[in-house]
Amino acid sequence: MSTTPTFLQPAARAAGYRPSPVRDFWEVSMQPGVISLAGGNPDLTVLPLAELGSAASRIVTERGMEALQYGSGTGTQGARDAVVRVMAAEGIPVDADSVQITAGSQMALELVIKLLCDPGDVILAEGPTYVGALGVFAGLQVDVEHVAMDQDGLRPDALEEAIARLRSQGRTVKALYTIPNFHNPTGITLSAERRPQVVDVCRRAGVPIIEDNPYGLLSFDGEVQQSMQQLDPENVIYLGSFSKIVAPGLRVGWAVAPEPLRRPLQLASEATTICASVLSQALIEEYVLGHDWQAALTTARGLYRGRATAVREALEEHMPAGTRWSTPRGGFFTWLDLPEGVSCHTVLDAAIDAKVVFVPGTAFYDGPDFGVGAPGLSQLRLAFSLEDEDTLREGVKRLGGAIAGR
Amino acid sequence: MSTTPTFLQPAARAAGYRPSPVRDFWEVSMQPGVISLAGGNPDLTVLPLAELGSAASRIVTERGMEALQYGSGTGTQGARDAVVRVMAAEGIPVDADSVQITAGSQMALELVIKLLCDPGDVILAEGPTYVGALGVFAGLQVDVEHVAMDQDGLRPDALEEAIARLRSQGRTVKALYTIPNFHNPTGITLSAERRPQVVDVCRRAGVPIIEDNPYGLLSFDGEVQQSMQQLDPENVIYLGSFSKIVAPGLRVGWAVAPEPLRRPLQLASEATTICASVLSQALIEEYVLGHDWQAALTTARGLYRGRATAVREALEEHMPAGTRWSTPRGGFFTWLDLPEGVSCHTVLDAAIDAKVVFVPGTAFYDGPDFGVGAPGLSQLRLAFSLEDEDTLREGVKRLGGAIAGR
Repeated sequence: MSTTPTFLQPAARAAGYRPSPVRDFWEVSMQPGVISLAGGNPDLTVLPLAELGSAASRIVTERGMEALQYGSGTGTQGARDAVVRVMAAEGIPVDADSVQITAGSQMALELVIKLLCDPGDVILAEGPTYVGALGVFAGLQVDVEHVAMDQDGLRPDALEEAIARLRSQGRTVKALYTIPNFHNPTGITLSAERRPQVVDVCRRAGVPIIEDNPYGLLSFDGEVQQSMQQLDPENVIYLGSFSKIVAPGLRVGWAVAPEPLRRPLQLASEATTICASVLSQALIEEYVLGHDWQAALTTARGLYRGRATAVREALEEHMPAGTRWSTPRGGFFTWLDLPEGVSCHTVLDAAIDAKVVFVPGTAFYDGPDFGVGAPGLSQLRLAFSLEDEDTLREGVKRLGGAIAGR
Repeated sequence: MSTTPTFLQPAARAAGYRPSPVRDFWEVSMQPGVISLAGGNPDLTVLPLAELGSAASRIVTERGMEALQYGSGTGTQGARDAVVRVMAAEGIPVDADSVQITAGSQMALELVIKLLCDPGDVILAEGPTYVGALGVFAGLQVDVEHVAMDQDGLRPDALEEAIARLRSQGRTVKALYTIPNFHNPTGITLSAERRPQVVDVCRRAGVPIIEDNPYGLLSFDGEVQQSMQQLDPENVIYLGSFSKIVAPGLRVGWAVAPEPLRRPLQLASEATTICASVLSQALIEEYVLGHDWQAALTTARGLYRGRATAVREALEEHMPAGTRWSTPRGGFFTWLDLPEGVSCHTVLDAAIDAKVVFVPGTAFYDGPDFGVGAPGLSQLRLAFSLEDEDTLREGVKRLGGAIAGR
């Protein structure tokens, strides 16, 4: 009766699931007095909770037989109509029939990678990139090749070079994963000039683009960017999310894929989750189709703009010489380059002592976390989405002390 | 500009995502006058919708900052406490800390298979088995070996033989997937005598058991069965679901795994969905901890018992000679063996003409759907969970005509 259970001999992919540094900071950031510049949580105080509560009550009481039952594998008609409305607000015309609802946009990425990539295939992504995407890639044993970015976003020349180099090495490049607007973690937006260039490089190389756009409606000035999906709908898979513009706790996201991928996406989604929460979809439908969701969003944008300004001013005041930072025009994040020779891990230790936390830069690269040459070792991400301006100023002040004193 | 996008060269696993016959019948079964004996949807008329609506309103209005925000990767404390309560009602003592909440129990199975299985590994499963599990296995490129069952459920001798045979062929057997209670699709329950035998075979062979138990609380007489998880907690991964006892539209399920698997499960869950709908989890918490959920369940059990009886009586009255069926003591399904030489596909064509639908037996086996020797070709599944007794009688009568007239 003592044979070893075989889950002590796990699948190869099991090694790819590493703790997310973002989530591991939760525990520290929950301690009293600690200021968290770590997690990218939206500010939900702008939501009309009483109205949403009434809507939830109405949905369950009047439409409960449907909203509590199994739902359509592509998503409810109402949720897909809400997606059409939200994408229209960003200037992207789509048809409801082309929308696949998923249990959050992380799930949409998971499904797309499942359909595109065999183990050992390569996904191109900005360096740095979203830590949750790295988790999806690692879990599906896909290799990541980071492509350089600068203050105008992903560099088309570096993209073209990477594709050619990888192919000359016999590697199979399956897609470019990119966050063009208010990029996580850098806050940088791909310039208007580069968008058609990136699209063109990928089209010529036969490399589909996965355009991940959770922050597109969160520019500080209300301006929207041109979507790459519109530039080349046949070669771009668009991922959207209600998490940053409505509420992440509902776990509803979506994909708009080129026609050949739609049915496979639906089947993969059904095989993985059957469907997204039908109650959540109904609440999204009620809110986006029946309420002034854009008013709440405008309020939120104002909050985020003020907070980004507070962080920038505090950085100018408190950062030691040699520290540089990005200047986001929307979204949740600022990215810091530390003075030469300073490690983000050393700074984090000092910062925790000073009761402020952030996410170290190494989390956003595929590669080793420590040691000379670890990518991101001299960088870090600050989130300004959730704390108020005074708290953010105090947090940046503590961080400045931690960097100076390390 | 005309290079072929590489999603026309999909991943090998993409071929594994086949349409679920259960969901494809939705369209036919939605036509007016068609009686569906196909989908295993729970009857939600037993739910106290007004009370649930008030709870939903209260959650959003009073706890919205938390219920609409990102939640814990293992699940909310409240949802895990609700799982403890539900499992206690089935006589299974567990600690809330051992519970991993997932976006439905299909997702729990997906995560477990991700962690255990490399492509080409083998999962043992009853023949026939749950069509959604076959979708998970196919999507992760895991091979399925069906193990024979009889009226007492999975046969321990056949299980032992299959493990030995597969190993002698050099195959890697990673787990037994089993639905011991009111099995989908057969309705059969594993006998009390066989439970320790199955557990013992697996323990001796070092093969973990995945015990999928969505129907355990749905016995017609209220009796509960011994869980295999209790017989060998170190070698059994237990999967549970609120879909059949509360509401599937919330998409909340769970896993109780042996200690070494818990942290990997959490990380895989975070990488795949971040967390389950926090709103759904809050509603489950309110309902299970704050309301008499067992009263609704008792009512539901009575409904299902009456419906199963109606189906059995109608089968006795209307089936042509040579047809046999299982006699479930709970759950949603009855399994039919057709007269010799009769194909379930031929019967389905005639049945659709007669305005009744069911799921053909081939859907529940890994293998070809058509042709001589296709497993399940002379079998079919009848669901009695959703239609009322008169409708079920009429549906079975039409089915009898379709079988007799084929």
